[in-house]
Amino acid sequence: MNKFSFTQHSSIKNRLARAGTISTPHGKINTPAFITVGTAATVKSLTPEQVKSTGAQAVLANTYHLHLRPGEQVVAEGGGLASFMNWPGPTFTDSGGFQVFSLGAAFGKEISKIASGDDSSQSSSENRSSHAQKAVIDDQGVSFSSHLDGSPLRLTPEISMKIQHKLGADIIFAFDECTSPLADYEYQKQALERTTAWAKRCLNTHKELKKTDKNYIALFGVVQGGRHQDLRRQSARELVELDLDGFGIGGSFNKDDMASAVAWVCQELPASKPRHLLGIGEPIDLFNAIENGIDTFDCVSPTRVARNGAAYTSTGRINLTNAKYKKDFRPIDSKCRCYSCLSFSRAYISHLSRSGEMLGATLLSIHNLYFITNLVDRIRESIIDQSFFELKKNFLASYY
Amino acid sequence: MNKFSFTQHSSIKNRLARAGTISTPHGKINTPAFITVGTAATVKSLTPEQVKSTGAQAVLANTYHLHLRPGEQVVAEGGGLASFMNWPGPTFTDSGGFQVFSLGAAFGKEISKIASGDDSSQSSSENRSSHAQKAVIDDQGVSFSSHLDGSPLRLTPEISMKIQHKLGADIIFAFDECTSPLADYEYQKQALERTTAWAKRCLNTHKELKKTDKNYIALFGVVQGGRHQDLRRQSARELVELDLDGFGIGGSFNKDDMASAVAWVCQELPASKPRHLLGIGEPIDLFNAIENGIDTFDCVSPTRVARNGAAYTSTGRINLTNAKYKKDFRPIDSKCRCYSCLSFSRAYISHLSRSGEMLGATLLSIHNLYFITNLVDRIRESIIDQSFFELKKNFLASYY
Repeated sequence: MNKFSFTQHSSIKNRLARAGTISTPHGKINTPAFITVGTAATVKSLTPEQVKSTGAQAVLANTYHLHLRPGEQVVAEGGGLASFMNWPGPTFTDSGGFQVFSLGAAFGKEISKIASGDDSSQSSSENRSSHAQKAVIDDQGVSFSSHLDGSPLRLTPEISMKIQHKLGADIIFAFDECTSPLADYEYQKQALERTTAWAKRCLNTHKELKKTDKNYIALFGVVQGGRHQDLRRQSARELVELDLDGFGIGGSFNKDDMASAVAWVCQELPASKPRHLLGIGEPIDLFNAIENGIDTFDCVSPTRVARNGAAYTSTGRINLTNAKYKKDFRPIDSKCRCYSCLSFSRAYISHLSRSGEMLGATLLSIHNLYFITNLVDRIRESIIDQSFFELKKNFLASYY
Repeated sequence: MNKFSFTQHSSIKNRLARAGTISTPHGKINTPAFITVGTAATVKSLTPEQVKSTGAQAVLANTYHLHLRPGEQVVAEGGGLASFMNWPGPTFTDSGGFQVFSLGAAFGKEISKIASGDDSSQSSSENRSSHAQKAVIDDQGVSFSSHLDGSPLRLTPEISMKIQHKLGADIIFAFDECTSPLADYEYQKQALERTTAWAKRCLNTHKELKKTDKNYIALFGVVQGGRHQDLRRQSARELVELDLDGFGIGGSFNKDDMASAVAWVCQELPASKPRHLLGIGEPIDLFNAIENGIDTFDCVSPTRVARNGAAYTSTGRINLTNAKYKKDFRPIDSKCRCYSCLSFSRAYISHLSRSGEMLGATLLSIHNLYFITNLVDRIRESIIDQSFFELKKNFLASYY
């Protein structure tokens, strides 16, 4: 059976930042690496070859979505996630824990898992909402109403493991409770302790299921604890005691505290195991996360903003639906070597986005994934040649 | 300046069917050929490379749509249609005449340009409708309300020519009146005579504009006359007198009479010039049109039905959103060599289509265009080796 391993090659002196390689049964991932999100076993609007052309090394799909459609049994009969979607490399699945937040505390409200630091607007938006939550949590697990048709759905640590083993990704996550950034200290503590208890239950089920797996599946625990240093460290220490293959860092941050929270956690985690930051992907966040010890991240932003007509460029984000791009015949970013920039003008992509043509989403998704993936690749090189802080300073000065 | 020409290589004894080559400034088209529709300067959901991979030789875009968005000036500044959309081959634009029908007599009603042969249902649907027409015709031209925002828009033969010369396709069409299949004989006669008068006005403007064109643009006249033999022959004879580069056959047919109408027209047209059948593309129609003298056609069907989850196969059309394909791990068509069939299962594409994922539309569009394009290529070979009727018999027996 193919195994799972992590090797650290380089690090920055006196910092947590490091470059390494994760080996999985479906191939290697050179880290730090941006993991492309393919929620429903498809990176939205792209073929696997187009995804590969952006430099993507691995894809992360969502357990909750695949359980609803097409169901894990269909994916299993299709040879597992990578084979089903014809992705020629490693895959991840999340645990469904994020939906505990997005369909629970955050449902129908304008709450992001990253708080702005100014809670007042979010509190008032929370008060405005009259939506009923679609996820209700108890110590055993979570009861959902499907976001598709309202049908009842139950996820527990054991069920999440069973689903994820059927989906057959190389790296899977323990079922966790992703809290709201608006939750108070007491609730954050309760949620992290529940998450630790669930991680233990996941591990028990995982060990049973491993006996009949075709390939080695690596289980990552998820560190919670909100924005509180003592809770983050407690969560990390509790998970380090378990026989896990790696760690995810999940849940809610204050935007300005994300780097600190990551640092607290990574100081507790062993250097020998990989660390994944869940759902983070804006350029400044990538630098801050890597600097503080993160190896991999995933984020829907590059493809989501693409579908709204937006593109990352070396001088900041632009929106091509803006009228000023109607006759701009330059590429999206003159420094970029992606397929979209080598083949099409801003004027053409602006036309597609303004007209709601699918090809606009495709071309911008290719560009944005290439941009982010290549930025992370450059950060990796900068760790190896010790130019990280120079790159960070220059990039951020140009971008923001 | 690169020229335009048509050469006939082969024909079927005692029939109008023929194989040939159209040469344009942007390349050659081996005929018979299916011309892929790219309404808004994009074949919906596909990159130019994906379109090319289906075997497509040329793309047809819509003058009305491009005039509204992004405007012909933007396309012209982008180097013309082919350069703007990065299509490496010949292009066509239609004249806007079809929108005289679709936004006029047919607007908001369930009228197809191909009548079913049973007019009663269509008449009652016509009576049910309370939509106001968005196109009103007079002898000088047509006044539209934009289907996007209701803004007024005027097309005349002269304006259509000016727009099309700015768009800069290799083959353009004279502005015509596409009639409803429900129109009576008197109206069809009036419309065809107006179409002839408009063709003359188009030719005058075209000759003026040619003087400053960078590339040779070929003008095709459009034969109208509904389902009436005398009107079809009259329309064709009137257009043959003009100095046109080729001919389109437009307008309304009774489904069962399409082959006859095409034959009447092609008997009148000179063998030395190419003939395009506008907006036809179902497999049986392809055989009947080619048998009766058609060289090229365009149709939105392959990509439109793809977006609804449907696929052509050698044993007929299937809809992959049907529950029976959920666990069908065979390719769409086991005889097909397209990218989608070589890479993905029916189960995966069914999942994508059922989930509304854009990649489903992309994969089915690739398959359907490959299927139709390759069918027409096989028909071309069958004309050259005199096996046309054998191919027609075998294909239709399997398909229908």
